[in-house]
Amino acid sequence: MFEEAEADPCLSKEEFKPLEARLRVALLNAQYQRLRQARKTLLVVVAGIDGAGKGATVNLLNEWMDPRHIKTLAYGPPEGEELERPPLWRYWKDLPPKGRTGIVFGSWYAPLIREAARKHPRHDAIEAQAAAIRRFEAILAAEGVQIVKLWFHLSRQAQRERAERLLASPETAWQVSPADLKVYKKFHRIRAAGEITLNHTDSGHAPWIVIPSADEQMRSARTAEAVLAALRQHGVPRIPPSFVAHSGPTRVIDRLGRLDYQAREEKDDYDSELGLLQGRLAGAVRSRKFQDRSLVLVFEGQDAAGKGGAIRRVTHALDARQFDITPVSAPNSDELARPYLWRFWRQVPRKGRIAIFDRSWYGRVLVERVEKLTPPATWRRAYAEINDFEGQLVASGAIVLKFWLAITPDVQLARFKEREKSPFKHFKITPDDWRNRDKWQDYARAANDMLARTDVSRAPWHLVSANDKRYARLQVLRHIVQTLEDQL
Amino acid sequence: MFEEAEADPCLSKEEFKPLEARLRVALLNAQYQRLRQARKTLLVVVAGIDGAGKGATVNLLNEWMDPRHIKTLAYGPPEGEELERPPLWRYWKDLPPKGRTGIVFGSWYAPLIREAARKHPRHDAIEAQAAAIRRFEAILAAEGVQIVKLWFHLSRQAQRERAERLLASPETAWQVSPADLKVYKKFHRIRAAGEITLNHTDSGHAPWIVIPSADEQMRSARTAEAVLAALRQHGVPRIPPSFVAHSGPTRVIDRLGRLDYQAREEKDDYDSELGLLQGRLAGAVRSRKFQDRSLVLVFEGQDAAGKGGAIRRVTHALDARQFDITPVSAPNSDELARPYLWRFWRQVPRKGRIAIFDRSWYGRVLVERVEKLTPPATWRRAYAEINDFEGQLVASGAIVLKFWLAITPDVQLARFKEREKSPFKHFKITPDDWRNRDKWQDYARAANDMLARTDVSRAPWHLVSANDKRYARLQVLRHIVQTLEDQL
Repeated sequence: MFEEAEADPCLSKEEFKPLEARLRVALLNAQYQRLRQARKTLLVVVAGIDGAGKGATVNLLNEWMDPRHIKTLAYGPPEGEELERPPLWRYWKDLPPKGRTGIVFGSWYAPLIREAARKHPRHDAIEAQAAAIRRFEAILAAEGVQIVKLWFHLSRQAQRERAERLLASPETAWQVSPADLKVYKKFHRIRAAGEITLNHTDSGHAPWIVIPSADEQMRSARTAEAVLAALRQHGVPRIPPSFVAHSGPTRVIDRLGRLDYQAREEKDDYDSELGLLQGRLAGAVRSRKFQDRSLVLVFEGQDAAGKGGAIRRVTHALDARQFDITPVSAPNSDELARPYLWRFWRQVPRKGRIAIFDRSWYGRVLVERVEKLTPPATWRRAYAEINDFEGQLVASGAIVLKFWLAITPDVQLARFKEREKSPFKHFKITPDDWRNRDKWQDYARAANDMLARTDVSRAPWHLVSANDKRYARLQVLRHIVQTLEDQL
Repeated sequence: MFEEAEADPCLSKEEFKPLEARLRVALLNAQYQRLRQARKTLLVVVAGIDGAGKGATVNLLNEWMDPRHIKTLAYGPPEGEELERPPLWRYWKDLPPKGRTGIVFGSWYAPLIREAARKHPRHDAIEAQAAAIRRFEAILAAEGVQIVKLWFHLSRQAQRERAERLLASPETAWQVSPADLKVYKKFHRIRAAGEITLNHTDSGHAPWIVIPSADEQMRSARTAEAVLAALRQHGVPRIPPSFVAHSGPTRVIDRLGRLDYQAREEKDDYDSELGLLQGRLAGAVRSRKFQDRSLVLVFEGQDAAGKGGAIRRVTHALDARQFDITPVSAPNSDELARPYLWRFWRQVPRKGRIAIFDRSWYGRVLVERVEKLTPPATWRRAYAEINDFEGQLVASGAIVLKFWLAITPDVQLARFKEREKSPFKHFKITPDDWRNRDKWQDYARAANDMLARTDVSRAPWHLVSANDKRYARLQVLRHIVQTLEDQL
């Protein structure tokens, strides 16, 4: 795959000049057209041999295009709060909105390339990294983030000559880093790392393009052509279903229907157990071991199932400085301009902290499915995307617990009526609530599907009978306390 | 001011119980009503004697109110990238949107209180800190962020007893920090610091309320009452004009009219000087000294004055990893829910970096004034607010340069027509542009006012004749290079 690049092809000045003029106009045009349409983000991933002119080429792109609408995203080794979250967190957080272009230095490929360039690369680590990258790029691509990946390549000899030439002049010496000067010595390992990386992560929806980089004009022209082709690309990429589809037909059990809705807790037992559980929770989250973990709590359930009340019984045991509650409703314009998981990634907690979601990313397969806000192909792939997201949280040390508070229609009706009468709850009930009630069966079916596909042991669902509020609150606390005590 | 609190008053259980019931309902009601209206943010600043129960009380507030709509903002000593920006940056960044409540621990008062609690407080430092806080709170209050500040206070003896009582039980010992145990020894200095703080920063729009804290029930009730009163407050607070108004009537000079619009640059001279200036710029921003500074460039001017072209000539000399360009247009919903400077505060650069604004916070006194998007009283106070903002940037090490690219109506007309004909510029011209043209005199007047009020030596305006694009680009680069070379 590097044959052409290692022949160090050149473009003469006579060939380059007219090409440059055409490319610049075309790039600007394509950029503005995308901005106007604002249908997709473009991410240009920059990688390749050190000292091949990556930085200089990106500067050139910024000059040829309108730099006001390009965001350069440069990452070094993870530091500070980045270390307290999953490795992909910082890339999620910084995603530009639709219509804009991001150029990524130090991308999610850095750890894979580093591993592959070791003297003895660990096969398993490479497979795992590559699989994580493929899933990441698949969700981005499916959610309107187009990706093109550039591998800057040249021959060993040309790399060395380029570094020495730049070093010789004080005007250009700053472009050369110490790493560039060491490439020569272990060129074959870096080259092999490139082969491994490209072989493992090339795909139709996020292609690798090798840029011959020995000659500046060739490098500039090929880069511009690659970016131009990406900017002009229309339509949704074909993404292999293995990355995005759920796990195939499953017999879905009516877990909601089988629940024991008679479960109750007496007032006296409740008060004493509530206090005990809250005490144990307080102890657990203040323990030294928890300072190296984090806790993610998801609350879902029918309207009026008592999510707010259950959450308050949990937070009662917590220090206000330790938790954040994110109430989730319809996405705003900033959120609509990014993949749907973006707004949840931004809320991923640091170590020692607790993130509570009152409704969550599961809206994708609940309200968005039932209300037909999202096409079936899109919400169907969300099961796998969500499982991957939660898997990343767990892998970085988070404890993830999900609660479905379940009530029956008659209890909901009683609570709605009670809310309408209450002097400070009546605004909680809206025409939407009554409309949702008419779709009770649709929601139940969506919830059963969701439970079947996303109840995994590393991030389990707890289906809680909530016709009796006291029982539901204790159950929630019991699950949390039990899990924390088991895991810490 | 601490007499009542140091008498350590108590509330009996019989007095407290009915009060608690009333307060809880009232707090929830008031909170929901504000959420629905979404007209204002409420910030509750928590300060006072360590070991007076601040944390416990905030936990209680979270429990009495709906914690899903309260954001606890807790700050320790500044760290990491916070140290690379003005001290108020982190508070600006985290401002909750309208309708929501934020409770602030470790607020902008921490440095003032620390200074005032020294054995020999420096009078000047206190005055400067207090003045900065007053300006900060004035702009927040004027922009729809209501502030109430609670000072938790109790007698020396009661503080000591409380800490010892909490320490005695393993259930509550975690509430006691080492600092709490040292309060006893230097109680008089902390008390004096409280007096100084309250005396310097109490105001009608951001009042201090002393909470007697020896007795838990008294402390809870008084805190709830203070927050309730704040939640219920209607109307815009009266803010002393000295903080917010501009500097009074000034004779405004028609600087735009007096400019020499004939200034030109010949092509040959231009090319060589452009290269030289870009080289000097490249050298300056790559110098070691710049790594401890930052650069903020503001570009304003009539439509078609050539802002984009000038910016590109600047960024040509920069590494794409070193700068960010923020194109500014109408605020989105997230931005409208906060003070207008919020979105610019979020873009304040770290050390060693460059932030370029294509249009800027000056929109407040330009387009918003001329198009009557903002009432006169509001844009009039923006001059002082903007001067304060830029002053904070400069004080933290930023170099701030502002450019107004000025053209004449005939040149604008010619450029509009040229754009309409160009295959890739025609979309740059919209009906808005033609409408703005009709208001040429209004915009000129607003620009002249702005120059008169915000052209300060620490953050100067450069008025650049831009009928000749080459001349304008060189002038911009000359000013930047000259300033950097002078200051580094």
